[in-house]
Amino acid sequence: MRAVVVDKFGDESVLNVKEIAAPKPGPSQILVSVKAAGINPVDTYIRSGNYLPSRLPKLPYTPGGDVCGVIEAVGENVGSEFKVGDKVYSLLITASGAYAEKATVEETFTVKLHQGLSFEEGSALGVPYFTAFRALRTIGQAVKGEKVLVHGASGGVGQEIACIQIGKHLGLEVIGTAGSENGAALVEAQGVTCYRHDDPDYLQKMKTAEGGFDLIVEMLANKNLENDLTMLNVGSGRVMIVGCRGEITINPRLLMGPETQIRGIGLTDEAMLETIKCLDEMASKNLVKPILGKSYSLDEAKTAHAEIINNSYGSSYGKNFFKIDN
Amino acid sequence: MRAVVVDKFGDESVLNVKEIAAPKPGPSQILVSVKAAGINPVDTYIRSGNYLPSRLPKLPYTPGGDVCGVIEAVGENVGSEFKVGDKVYSLLITASGAYAEKATVEETFTVKLHQGLSFEEGSALGVPYFTAFRALRTIGQAVKGEKVLVHGASGGVGQEIACIQIGKHLGLEVIGTAGSENGAALVEAQGVTCYRHDDPDYLQKMKTAEGGFDLIVEMLANKNLENDLTMLNVGSGRVMIVGCRGEITINPRLLMGPETQIRGIGLTDEAMLETIKCLDEMASKNLVKPILGKSYSLDEAKTAHAEIINNSYGSSYGKNFFKIDN
Repeated sequence: MRAVVVDKFGDESVLNVKEIAAPKPGPSQILVSVKAAGINPVDTYIRSGNYLPSRLPKLPYTPGGDVCGVIEAVGENVGSEFKVGDKVYSLLITASGAYAEKATVEETFTVKLHQGLSFEEGSALGVPYFTAFRALRTIGQAVKGEKVLVHGASGGVGQEIACIQIGKHLGLEVIGTAGSENGAALVEAQGVTCYRHDDPDYLQKMKTAEGGFDLIVEMLANKNLENDLTMLNVGSGRVMIVGCRGEITINPRLLMGPETQIRGIGLTDEAMLETIKCLDEMASKNLVKPILGKSYSLDEAKTAHAEIINNSYGSSYGKNFFKIDN
Repeated sequence: MRAVVVDKFGDESVLNVKEIAAPKPGPSQILVSVKAAGINPVDTYIRSGNYLPSRLPKLPYTPGGDVCGVIEAVGENVGSEFKVGDKVYSLLITASGAYAEKATVEETFTVKLHQGLSFEEGSALGVPYFTAFRALRTIGQAVKGEKVLVHGASGGVGQEIACIQIGKHLGLEVIGTAGSENGAALVEAQGVTCYRHDDPDYLQKMKTAEGGFDLIVEMLANKNLENDLTMLNVGSGRVMIVGCRGEITINPRLLMGPETQIRGIGLTDEAMLETIKCLDEMASKNLVKPILGKSYSLDEAKTAHAEIINNSYGSSYGKNFFKIDN
């Protein structure tokens, strides 16, 4: 089969397509014929080698955690829920790597594709919706009625729209920002008030109109963290670091008086059941609706990785993915 | 009576001693003849006017939240636990201001001075032990057996020793750093391993010997925060911002992979009962032992405020206080 293979950690030039043997499913695994694979910033962090050592795969490896496709075979211990021919997607992680024509997924990390969603939409769910749920609920501990700012809500990595949709489902009051007219339209189409962060006065306008926030989901901490700390409610306020592209200078005293918090969101916890339950509930109300961005072939992997990091905030929007002819 | 009076917010030059009328206790208040008053960094933040607007006193005001002295009168609704002649200290806050010959304290914020402690030691308990308890337990949520680094453990504002003593009382494994031989000796005298943060290799030495920390109590976030983020345990790790003297550049991505947190500690919550209970328990085991630093007269208030901010980390140690002849 054809797959993207990384032989050494480094910049996007290490992403090369090769012909390799198709993976075989272990006893608890499912073999998926891949129709689409999501492209996530975390894939680039891992590829660079600059990530938690315990989470770096052994070389060589095939990147990607989000696949969507059709079950081609199931391991001997896989439950009867999953059958050959079923449409499924992976939540967060695959066993063999998503950027390939075939991939194996542990049953635990496999979810049946909800009715009405395309393969491409299915490939846009895993990391983005898991991360959004984790930021809002698992680590963010948001409770019904809290006021949430999704900062960079139109950004192109998929977490943004997932945050809005899950936030509304959880009964949170969600406000967004976007960096373009298209982006703002996208956010507003979700039924959410949107401020334009390309307006130099947007912070003051937002503070005046909205007051403080209980929770800010931050997609670009290196740009916004210091400002975020000035917009949090005393006592309850917390910034969730979901995206970051570099350093920022902050005054930590901003956290002291109001006793606010900054919490990092990674992919540490693989306990998925809560996220899957939330997604199933949302799907039953037709509330899971990822917004698709740009489509790539596997041969365009280098470009895809460069663009997810450089263009993922502000002017672009929608979730990028590989489309695979299978 | 003589008292330090601030007529306008500003630098330490606004601290002037005046002859003013002694305060009268309200129905739920206690009038204390002040023997000693603690000097805390938060007093300087409030004096500067650069603090939470809701926590700024009306001008003119007398600074200080920590007094220790003898009860001179009690309001009509004060419980029979407190009698004229009792030795008491205030936890965190007074009604009329601590830098004075007499001060009123709400009964809720009044604690009987534990046996064996001097007035000066009593004035060293309020803000430091409250803050330390809050950093470790109330906001830090440390649980028995967790590994805690008190960064700047010999510093001169009193929280440092309080953190060590309360940490040990709570069953935490406490490690300290200090910036001088004297400081290290002070920390080690508490039965705690101490690293010298004036040694350029101390971070590497500490990481090698200790592994990661679940909780870091940070007394100088503007210097150490970025390093702290590299020393936290995955998942459980959190830095508590107790002290900060300016800005620092950090890479927020350091929080993402390991899902760690930064939490600010202020004096937001006035629910004192848990702290008082902890202090009473510790006192019964003779574990409350503040380390005294420099003594000032009220006339030296300007110097006292300059020194608490400039010399409070590293080379100096012990808790500074006003000694008042009464």
